Amino acid sequence: SLDYDNIENQLFLEEERKMSYMGFRCLEISRWVVCGLIGFLTGLIACFIDIVVEQLAGIKYQVVKENIEKFTEVGGLSISLLLWAVLNSAIVMLGAIIVAFFEPIAAGSGIPQIKCYLNGIKIPRVVRLKEGPMIHSGAVVAAGVSQGRSTSLKRDFKIFEYFRRDTEKRDFVSAGAAAGVSAAFGAPVGGVLFSLEEGASFWNQMLTWRIFFASMISTFTLNFFLSIYHNKPGELSNPGLINFGRFQGDSVAYNLYEIPLFIAMGAIGKNMLLLIFDSLIPLTRVYVHRPCLQVMEAMLVAAVTATVSFTMIYFSNDCQPLGPEHTEEYPLQLFCADGEYNSMATAFFNTPERSVRSLFHNQPGTYNPLTLGLFTLTYFFLACWTYGLAVSAGVFIPSLLIGAAWGRLCGILLATITPDGSVSIWADPGKYALIGAAAQLGGIVRMTLSLTVIMVEATGNVTYGLPIMLVLMTAKIVGDYFVEGLYDIHIKLQSVPFLHWEAPATSHWLTAREVMSSPVTCLNRIEKVGTIVDTLSNTSTNHNGFPVVVKVSGSDEPPKLCGLILRSQLIVLLKHKVFVELARSRLTQRKLQLKDFRDAYPRFPPIQSIHVSQDERECMMDLTEFMNATPYTVPQETSLPRVFKLFRALGLRHLVVVDDENRVVGLVTRKDLARYHLGKHGLEELQLAQT
Amino acid sequence: SLDYDNIENQLFLEEERKMSYMGFRCLEISRWVVCGLIGFLTGLIACFIDIVVEQLAGIKYQVVKENIEKFTEVGGLSISLLLWAVLNSAIVMLGAIIVAFFEPIAAGSGIPQIKCYLNGIKIPRVVRLKEGPMIHSGAVVAAGVSQGRSTSLKRDFKIFEYFRRDTEKRDFVSAGAAAGVSAAFGAPVGGVLFSLEEGASFWNQMLTWRIFFASMISTFTLNFFLSIYHNKPGELSNPGLINFGRFQGDSVAYNLYEIPLFIAMGAIGKNMLLLIFDSLIPLTRVYVHRPCLQVMEAMLVAAVTATVSFTMIYFSNDCQPLGPEHTEEYPLQLFCADGEYNSMATAFFNTPERSVRSLFHNQPGTYNPLTLGLFTLTYFFLACWTYGLAVSAGVFIPSLLIGAAWGRLCGILLATITPDGSVSIWADPGKYALIGAAAQLGGIVRMTLSLTVIMVEATGNVTYGLPIMLVLMTAKIVGDYFVEGLYDIHIKLQSVPFLHWEAPATSHWLTAREVMSSPVTCLNRIEKVGTIVDTLSNTSTNHNGFPVVVKVSGSDEPPKLCGLILRSQLIVLLKHKVFVELARSRLTQRKLQLKDFRDAYPRFPPIQSIHVSQDERECMMDLTEFMNATPYTVPQETSLPRVFKLFRALGLRHLVVVDDENRVVGLVTRKDLARYHLGKHGLEELQLAQT
Repeated sequence: SLDYDNIENQLFLEEERKMSYMGFRCLEISRWVVCGLIGFLTGLIACFIDIVVEQLAGIKYQVVKENIEKFTEVGGLSISLLLWAVLNSAIVMLGAIIVAFFEPIAAGSGIPQIKCYLNGIKIPRVVRLKEGPMIHSGAVVAAGVSQGRSTSLKRDFKIFEYFRRDTEKRDFVSAGAAAGVSAAFGAPVGGVLFSLEEGASFWNQMLTWRIFFASMISTFTLNFFLSIYHNKPGELSNPGLINFGRFQGDSVAYNLYEIPLFIAMGAIGKNMLLLIFDSLIPLTRVYVHRPCLQVMEAMLVAAVTATVSFTMIYFSNDCQPLGPEHTEEYPLQLFCADGEYNSMATAFFNTPERSVRSLFHNQPGTYNPLTLGLFTLTYFFLACWTYGLAVSAGVFIPSLLIGAAWGRLCGILLATITPDGSVSIWADPGKYALIGAAAQLGGIVRMTLSLTVIMVEATGNVTYGLPIMLVLMTAKIVGDYFVEGLYDIHIKLQSVPFLHWEAPATSHWLTAREVMSSPVTCLNRIEKVGTIVDTLSNTSTNHNGFPVVVKVSGSDEPPKLCGLILRSQLIVLLKHKVFVELARSRLTQRKLQLKDFRDAYPRFPPIQSIHVSQDERECMMDLTEFMNATPYTVPQETSLPRVFKLFRALGLRHLVVVDDENRVVGLVTRKDLARYHLGKHGLEELQLAQT
Repeated sequence: SLDYDNIENQLFLEEERKMSYMGFRCLEISRWVVCGLIGFLTGLIACFIDIVVEQLAGIKYQVVKENIEKFTEVGGLSISLLLWAVLNSAIVMLGAIIVAFFEPIAAGSGIPQIKCYLNGIKIPRVVRLKEGPMIHSGAVVAAGVSQGRSTSLKRDFKIFEYFRRDTEKRDFVSAGAAAGVSAAFGAPVGGVLFSLEEGASFWNQMLTWRIFFASMISTFTLNFFLSIYHNKPGELSNPGLINFGRFQGDSVAYNLYEIPLFIAMGAIGKNMLLLIFDSLIPLTRVYVHRPCLQVMEAMLVAAVTATVSFTMIYFSNDCQPLGPEHTEEYPLQLFCADGEYNSMATAFFNTPERSVRSLFHNQPGTYNPLTLGLFTLTYFFLACWTYGLAVSAGVFIPSLLIGAAWGRLCGILLATITPDGSVSIWADPGKYALIGAAAQLGGIVRMTLSLTVIMVEATGNVTYGLPIMLVLMTAKIVGDYFVEGLYDIHIKLQSVPFLHWEAPATSHWLTAREVMSSPVTCLNRIEKVGTIVDTLSNTSTNHNGFPVVVKVSGSDEPPKLCGLILRSQLIVLLKHKVFVELARSRLTQRKLQLKDFRDAYPRFPPIQSIHVSQDERECMMDLTEFMNATPYTVPQETSLPRVFKLFRALGLRHLVVVDDENRVVGLVTRKDLARYHLGKHGLEELQLAQT
């Protein structure tokens, strides 16, 4: 796991004390600069993705549309189907190959991984250079920029060296994730809340402002470059990557009696689907482990999607008149009369984002209920299958699309069951589409606060704030009763030691004594090199932190705690051979500095790669300067919730348990706390993976 | 100060351990219920205030208007002036009398007080029943409801007894403050952020959701009852108490080259005014201490306001045509031609909220620049004077009004300096009014994140989100360079031990040893009653927490730390005479329970009111059951930032400093930390008031 508690050893304190007030000002300014850079780069990436996706989709749909139109008259539409399936598969293949062969961790949406990272769990390679959806992209950019170097690109710019530790890096990754959300939805405030809701434990005002700044710059950059791309330079009212269009005018009003309906939609609709979804997840998870097969599977799904979509469109007879102000980019006439278009095609034959927008904003009567019902079901199953694939794909847009479809369906059905006289009050099915989308997404990802703000910012209207909130709260409460959120399911599947917000309710009877790992491997303040090497090489324990103890001179008492040292620090010390004997013989030897630790961060070499000769094993190492001399400690009687609170609030990795003589009796780590879980039958202990 | 760390003594742990899983569920549900109630009541109060203010203002302006119209023709307008001044003074007198004679703490906006409370500083009577602006009202409602009783009303409903401690109460007060903001501006998300930005240190997801719920219910209640009041029951798209009207249509777009202008407005305009404001604050602070004089002063200000306003209107010759869709509630014709109205009167002769709305939304050309300039200056000086008065008045609306006025002025001036060909791009001065309002308010209160969201929610449009953010950030950065925010100035004036987000940057050279108070008055685990009474009666120290120590039996070593007990607990123990000797003689005596402590919370009697006889002084008291057996401790070498982080993250009140034998060497309190301050010349020590 990560260490968010600063290692306050003598070196660190010396550096801090030497730094002048101006030094701290400069650091503060460079933090803002880094956040600005993160926002800028994330915005640029978003802009690039947007343009590429738009171009690719444009080419794909244009080619298929022309092909279909050519063959509608003369017959032989199967060729069009084939073309569509091949195009789909080709694009998916590219993505799948990259993921399956180069970066398996890039599969999925990346949100569970970022959630874990912000919680303090180290997932190897999670923030390394790679493609991925926006939130993940933002985090990756942040990790790269803030460290002033890239291990993937093997470049070190020798800047921002101060930021090369877990605490600072996490802060920047939070900013990056926020910038990603901000660029994706044009929702800077939503982005900040997302970061806080998913990651932060300690609310720091300056940090929040920096995150906010990164989000702001990110939206701004995206809008600025997109406005140039769209030949309207300088017009900045464009929102983010995913644009739901503005809800405007009088259609936005809602009435009191609609509130229960909204709540019901939040409670029922999504969960009905979620239960299916839940049973499908184990089926759709990546059971195919060979890269080739993974790519094949992804291509198969793409082809099946095209085939199913085509079949649905083919057999649909839902023709709608093509008005002068129609919003469809690629209206398909197919078998409809001249001046009409196939309504099913609007839903399927379009980028999902455009489909959502048309479900939200199209005039009442654009879709018939049967079309929507069929679309919801088909798309739902396809989305479930897609989600488990080895491609970088999110769950946001498909969920929104499914929700919008059944929401609009509800709206239409409501309009038909009311007497004709009062038809005007249900007039706008787009409103229900929005509520449905919120319910579906909220039921799946469960981020109440940030999701509300994201939806409000993405729709550009705050009037719906209250109903969206209500729907999301209902979806969350009802959803939590049945099953955990999708991201939580993912996190659980990986059995990582994820710490929740609070200790389980009924855990007051547990104390540090029961929870801690004991006995603990301790090191002496002046320790033999051989002992240290042996301790680090012991693969059966594989500890990451070691309490440092000191014997009271001339006394038989057991040694007392005097500090805490990390595996990574010991490795650097061994690598630089900081032995007492060598220091005596080579008086001019350069003293080890914080810079040496920072250069090694974050990928410290394993102990096996460090050669220590037999003579050196007999040397001594003085840990005084390098250990954290004031580690946090608790007595053995401390209750679990109290330990938990300390861990969560300070972002600890190790907490030393001492007796009333200040002797080490145990060590509490993240894993010791994360294994307690409140299940259906009271407190349960979980099996956690070895990390 | 307040104690946000739970007192985990044996009684508490026993209660928690006895509680079943269902018990915790019920508690959780009652927390939600309390938050719902808080939201509901806050919404009701907001509704009540809205209706009363509207009615009162309606009567006042109607009477004056009729009077003015009557006398315009025949001369003798001085009678109208007199009437206006008298009406103004009468209303202000009522408020001032209540504040000056009954609750002096109700003066001002209440926000600095709530800020202090959430930070952990106990200000006597801050959350007791009284009138006040919405944020404060929300907090007061929360403190009352969550405790299930009211000391002002002398009623105890015997419910929610579990919540009678600082930790729980603060959480509910956060929710109340959020509900207040939510009702005031129709900004539920803004309210949550306000609470977090001003108060919270530890971000807890469940708590955030509850705060969100309270905010939501509050807006909902307000909207619901207002919709009934306005005879449109069930139409819920009304926003909060302060409604800026919606910015809609194409006028909302802004362009890249306007961004620097917005930023300049944020940087310059507000600070120009703020510098004056800053020099006026010491003058306007309450130097008049006798209640009678305070009331007189308030009435004088009211009369002067009326006179100045009247004079401005009288000498203004800014006549505007009264169009068919005019929004003025009380258009004054005065000396204008028929079908025209006096534009200066729109600004002065109106509730400030309506004036803001008309500045935002009126057609270009409604105001002439001279009117606005004069209005800004006059209103600014009046507002400064009013703010220091002994009435419950906020700074929000006056700041918004001043900002909107000079913002619109900027917009108009910009339109005049550009060539006529491009006049359309500056066409909407309302946009500049909005930016000006944001800049002014942001410069004064400095709440970047929450204020952005509040403004966005109150204007009902997210398009302006980005410029508002930029303006607020600029206002904050530039403002911080000159002077602290208004609320921070207030907090400083009261010299309370307010803890900021982080320790001062250059404080790493300080350790717990330098910071702590020493020597510490310790109590033995089994202590003589006389010693306890003497310790508590010692007015020179007046400590609130005492480390409990225990001697190792049969050893000469100094005693070791075994717990921490609070003054309030000792008082309850003395009151119930929990003496070892009495327990032996009266075996059937009821054991002291947590309930006894909760009943006494939060106003524990002073030690002087507890009578202890000379015989009783010789008895012994066993503190084992009541002390917190696992207080947080730090070694003496811990650096100040580390101590600070522990304090801030856990909301501590006392932190025991121990040596490596676990013996007490000192105690760090909030005041020890708050006195270090980063001034112009490095680290400074402040003088803090005795609290």
